[in-house]
Amino acid sequence: MAAAAEDAAGVAPAAEPGTGDGRAPVEFRTDPSRYRHWRLVTDGPVATLAMDVAEDGGIQDGYELKLNSYDLGVDIELYDAVQRLRFEHPEVRAVVITSAKEKIFCAGANIRMLAQAAHPWKVNFCKFTNETRNGIEDATRNSGQAYIAALNGTASGGGYELALACEHIMLVDDRSSAVSLPELPLLGVLPGTGGLTRVTDKRHVRRDLADYFSTRPEGIGGKKAVQWKLVDEAVPRVQWQERVSERAVAAARASARLPGGGRGVELTPLTKTRTGTRIGYTYVSAVIDRAREVAEITVLGPDAYAPSSMAGVHALGADFWMLAVARELDDLILDLRANETEVGTWVLRSRGDAAQVLAYDDLLLVNSGGDWLANEIVLYLKRTLKRLDVTSRSLITLIEPGSCFAGSLLELALASDRSYMLSGVFEEADPDASPAAIIVGAMNTGPLPMGNGLTRLQTRFYSDLDSLAAVEKRVSEPLEAEDAEQLGLVTFAPDDIDWEEEVRIAIEERSSFSPDALTGLEANYRFAGPETIETKIFGRLTAWQNWIFYRPNASGPGGALRKYGTGQRADFDRKRV
Amino acid sequence: MAAAAEDAAGVAPAAEPGTGDGRAPVEFRTDPSRYRHWRLVTDGPVATLAMDVAEDGGIQDGYELKLNSYDLGVDIELYDAVQRLRFEHPEVRAVVITSAKEKIFCAGANIRMLAQAAHPWKVNFCKFTNETRNGIEDATRNSGQAYIAALNGTASGGGYELALACEHIMLVDDRSSAVSLPELPLLGVLPGTGGLTRVTDKRHVRRDLADYFSTRPEGIGGKKAVQWKLVDEAVPRVQWQERVSERAVAAARASARLPGGGRGVELTPLTKTRTGTRIGYTYVSAVIDRAREVAEITVLGPDAYAPSSMAGVHALGADFWMLAVARELDDLILDLRANETEVGTWVLRSRGDAAQVLAYDDLLLVNSGGDWLANEIVLYLKRTLKRLDVTSRSLITLIEPGSCFAGSLLELALASDRSYMLSGVFEEADPDASPAAIIVGAMNTGPLPMGNGLTRLQTRFYSDLDSLAAVEKRVSEPLEAEDAEQLGLVTFAPDDIDWEEEVRIAIEERSSFSPDALTGLEANYRFAGPETIETKIFGRLTAWQNWIFYRPNASGPGGALRKYGTGQRADFDRKRV
Repeated sequence: MAAAAEDAAGVAPAAEPGTGDGRAPVEFRTDPSRYRHWRLVTDGPVATLAMDVAEDGGIQDGYELKLNSYDLGVDIELYDAVQRLRFEHPEVRAVVITSAKEKIFCAGANIRMLAQAAHPWKVNFCKFTNETRNGIEDATRNSGQAYIAALNGTASGGGYELALACEHIMLVDDRSSAVSLPELPLLGVLPGTGGLTRVTDKRHVRRDLADYFSTRPEGIGGKKAVQWKLVDEAVPRVQWQERVSERAVAAARASARLPGGGRGVELTPLTKTRTGTRIGYTYVSAVIDRAREVAEITVLGPDAYAPSSMAGVHALGADFWMLAVARELDDLILDLRANETEVGTWVLRSRGDAAQVLAYDDLLLVNSGGDWLANEIVLYLKRTLKRLDVTSRSLITLIEPGSCFAGSLLELALASDRSYMLSGVFEEADPDASPAAIIVGAMNTGPLPMGNGLTRLQTRFYSDLDSLAAVEKRVSEPLEAEDAEQLGLVTFAPDDIDWEEEVRIAIEERSSFSPDALTGLEANYRFAGPETIETKIFGRLTAWQNWIFYRPNASGPGGALRKYGTGQRADFDRKRV
Repeated sequence: MAAAAEDAAGVAPAAEPGTGDGRAPVEFRTDPSRYRHWRLVTDGPVATLAMDVAEDGGIQDGYELKLNSYDLGVDIELYDAVQRLRFEHPEVRAVVITSAKEKIFCAGANIRMLAQAAHPWKVNFCKFTNETRNGIEDATRNSGQAYIAALNGTASGGGYELALACEHIMLVDDRSSAVSLPELPLLGVLPGTGGLTRVTDKRHVRRDLADYFSTRPEGIGGKKAVQWKLVDEAVPRVQWQERVSERAVAAARASARLPGGGRGVELTPLTKTRTGTRIGYTYVSAVIDRAREVAEITVLGPDAYAPSSMAGVHALGADFWMLAVARELDDLILDLRANETEVGTWVLRSRGDAAQVLAYDDLLLVNSGGDWLANEIVLYLKRTLKRLDVTSRSLITLIEPGSCFAGSLLELALASDRSYMLSGVFEEADPDASPAAIIVGAMNTGPLPMGNGLTRLQTRFYSDLDSLAAVEKRVSEPLEAEDAEQLGLVTFAPDDIDWEEEVRIAIEERSSFSPDALTGLEANYRFAGPETIETKIFGRLTAWQNWIFYRPNASGPGGALRKYGTGQRADFDRKRV
C-alpha cells in the first residue's frame, strides 16, 4: 500500500539495484585500471584529476552521461581516486581537478538519472557524493593535499558544487564559461551536494547575491564571479595552463604534507565475499537477516601484536590491521546502504583483545603528527566513523564477553543509537569467561571528531562537563558493565537473565517503527550541540532536499525533474509550505 | 496534476481554510474574554496559565480535543496569553503553566486533526506552535517572566514539548503520571515542536537515553525522569500545591523583570479590515494579487514625533507607533501564512520619514535597559522579524523615494531575499522627489538578532568583517542607492530606465519556480553561519518533519497517522532512506 502510494506520488518505479530484486548489487570497489570517467596523472608533488565521463558508462541503463554529467558510478571512481592519492601518493601535495573535455568542466548530476531514480537511490547518491566532497576538504585541511578546481569550462550544479569543495577555484574567462546552480529554476530541486551551505558559509557570498545566482540558469562568469566570491580568479584562456601550473606548484609548496617514507601504500584489492546473506572481509563481516531486517556486524581485533614502529606499518601497508578494518568497514557501510535498504538495524559486535586495540591506537597516535601514513590511517578511521553517524540505519552495539571495544573500536559503540553491555557472563554458554570490559583510550578524546567538531564523548555528554570529566579520569582502565553504565558510557547493562529478552525487544521493536521517523529521529539525536558546514549539509540541507525530491512538484509526473528536456513546463502545486 | 498526485500520496484532502476556497480565514486575534481553552489568573507576581481544552472547540470540524490535546485554535489562545502577560502584566515575574484537568497535563497535538490536515496546514501549524514556544523562552530569558511547567498529570508529545520550553519542569510523582514523546512509535512521525532538539541541546539528556525514551509510548515518570534529566523534579501529590507555589514565588523573586510603571499596556483590539484582495491596519497594509501570486505590503513610518520620554510611550500604550507596527506586522504575517498559501512572494515597501523612525528607535534603545515597556517593544519587534525569517515566502524589498528604511524598518530589507533600491528618482512620476536613502541605525547592530544569534547585518556579511566594519562606519548617515549598493546593503540599484523591467522580472520569475525548491533555498540562504537551538528547530528538525509528514508511511492511507486508533497496524514501506 505504502509502496503503491509512493509510485502514485510520482516517484519513478524503482530503478534500484541490489535490494533483493535480483539486480546486481552496487559495488564500490574499483581501481585506476578500471576507471572509465577520470584520468589520474601525477607529476611529482602535483596530481591532476581530469574528468572525462564516458557517455555510455552509466551505472544504470536509461541515460547518457553527456557533458561530463555524473552518476553514482562516476562518483565511485572519484572517491577511489581521492583515497588512493592519500595512501598511494605520499609525494602529492596539490591536486588539480579539471576536465578533459573542451568547453565544459562538469554539468552536474545527470538529470535523466535523477528523474528515473527511486527516492532512496537519489538520497543515498547525494549522501555518498557529499561524503566524497567532505573527504576532499579533509585532504586539503588535514593531509596536506590541497585541491584546486581548474574550471576550464562551465561548471553547473553538482559541477560547481565539486569546485566548492576545493580550496581554490579558477574559472577560465572566455565570455562563455560560467559557474551556476541551475537546480531551482530548471529542475525544481535544490543543489544537493552542499552548494547552498558552502556558497554562504565557506565562500561568504552574500545571501541576496546567492539568491540571485541560484535563480539564474546560465550562471555567472568572469569578473563578476570573482567579485561575488563565487570563484577565486577568472583567468584568460591564453594564460590558463601557465596559471593553473603556478597555482598548483604554489599550493604544493605551501602544503604541510607529512614526511615518513617516500613510497606509498598500495590499496590492494579488498578480499570480499558476498552471498545473499553474508558479506565477509578479513576482519569485518555482516550476516544479513532480511526477515528480521537486521545486519549483524562483527569487527575482529588485531590478530597480531602491533608493529614496534611505523616502519613495520609501512611494510605491512594495506594489511596493517587498522587500515584493513577502516577499509572493510567503509566498504561494508557503503554496500549495505546502497544494496540493503530494507535492513534497517545494524547490530555491532567486536571480538578480540582490547589491550591490543589500544596498542595499535597508541602506535598511530604517537606518530600521526610526524608520519604521513599514521596520519592518514587515523583520518580514514575518522571519515569511516563519520559515515556511520550519517547512516540512516538504527545502530545498536552489543558488548559481550570476548569483545574488544577499546579506544578506536569503542567509537563504534559511541556512534550507536544504543548500546547494551552484558553484566557478568553468559552463565550457561560460557560461565568461565571474563566479563566484558570497555576501555576509554586516547582515540576517544580528540583525534576522531564527529562532523559537529566534537568527539563522540563530548557529544554524548553535551554540556555535562562533570560526566565527561568522570569518564576522562578512567582512561585506560577496563570498565565492566556496572562501571560503564554508571559512567554513562553504555545505555543499559542487563545481566544474563534479562539480556536475551531485552536485546531481542530492542531490535525487534526497531523494525516495527516507521523507517522514515527513525531516520529523522536518529539524524537529530546523533548531532547534539554545535553545527558546522558538514552537519548543516547533512542535517538542514539534506532534509530539505529529501522533502523537495519527494514532492510531486519535483518527482511527480508533472514535476520539474520529469519535464526537463521535454519542452513542457512543470505543473506545480503553487501552495507554499 | 501535482495536486492530484498529492492526494494519491495519501495526504488528506485539504481541510484547509482560507485559501480562496470559500472557507473563513483563520483569525489570530483573540483576547482572554474569548478564550475557550485556557484560564489565565494572576496573583501578584505569579500568573497561572491553566490548560482546559474544550473538547468541542476545535478550529476545524472532524475531531474532538480530548485529554487536553490541542489544535491551532488552542495554540492561538496560548500565544495571545503569553503576549498579554508581557504587556498587560508588568507585575508578573513568574508564570506557571499547568492543567485544569485531573490526571492529564496535555496529550499533545490532536492526532485526528493531524491525520486529516493537508500538508501545508500541518507544517504551518508546527511553525506557529514553535514560534510560541520560542516566545516562552524569550519571555523567561529576556522579560523576567520565568515559565514553570507544573505537570499535574501526564504530558505527552506536544504536551511534553510545551514543558520543554519552560525553564523548570515539575512532574507529579504518583506512579502513573509521566512525560513522553510517543510520536515515533505511535504515529510514525517526529515530535514536531522542538522536542528532539531541546531534549539533547537544552536539557542535556544523553542521546542514547533520549533514543530509548522516544521509543516508549508510555513515557518515563518519577525518579527516573529526574535522573535522566527529562524533568527537574518529581513531587508527590500531597506536596504538589505547596511545592509549585514555592517554586513560583522563588522564580518571581529571582526575576530581573524591569520596573517602569505599575500599570500594564492593554493590547486593545487591532483595527483590521480584510477583503478578498486587501488586508489593512493603521500602519501596515497588504494588497493581494492572486493572479500574480504577490502580496504588496506597505509599512508606514510614524505619523507623529516620538514622545520625549517613556512616560509618553506608556500613555500612548498600544497606539505607540512601533508597538502598533509590530502587532500589525505580526498579525499580517500569520494571516498571510495561514490563509494565502499560494501567494508566494511578498513585496515590501515603506513610506515615511526615516529620521522619525530613528527617533523612535533611539527612544526605545535608550530606555530598554531600564523600562519594561521599552524592553518589551524591542523584544516584540525582534520576534516579529524572526517570523519573517522563517516564513516560507519569497521576500523582496523595494526601496523607492519617500520610503523610510532606517533602523528598525531597515531590518525588513535586510530580512528579505533580495532588495532593489531605485537609483535617482522616477523621472516621469515625480521628478522633484528626493532620491531614496536608507539609514543604518543602532537597531541594526545588536538588539534585533536573528534566530542564529547574529544580527541581520552580521549574517549578511558572515565572516566578511571588512564589509561589516565599512557599514558600521556609516551608521546614522543617509545612504543613497549607489552607496548602499557599494556597501552591500541592497542587492541591486537600477535607475528609472531599468527599474520597472528588472523588478517585474524578479517578481514574475519567482512565481514560475517550484514553490518547494524556493522554500528550501530560502531556508538555507537566510541562515548563514552558526546554529542555535532555535535555528536547529526551524532548519534541521522542521525539514525532517516536513519530509516525514509528507511520506505515505505517515500520511498515506496505510500510514501511521491515519491508522492510529483503528486497531490496525500501519503498512510501512520498509526502505530506509
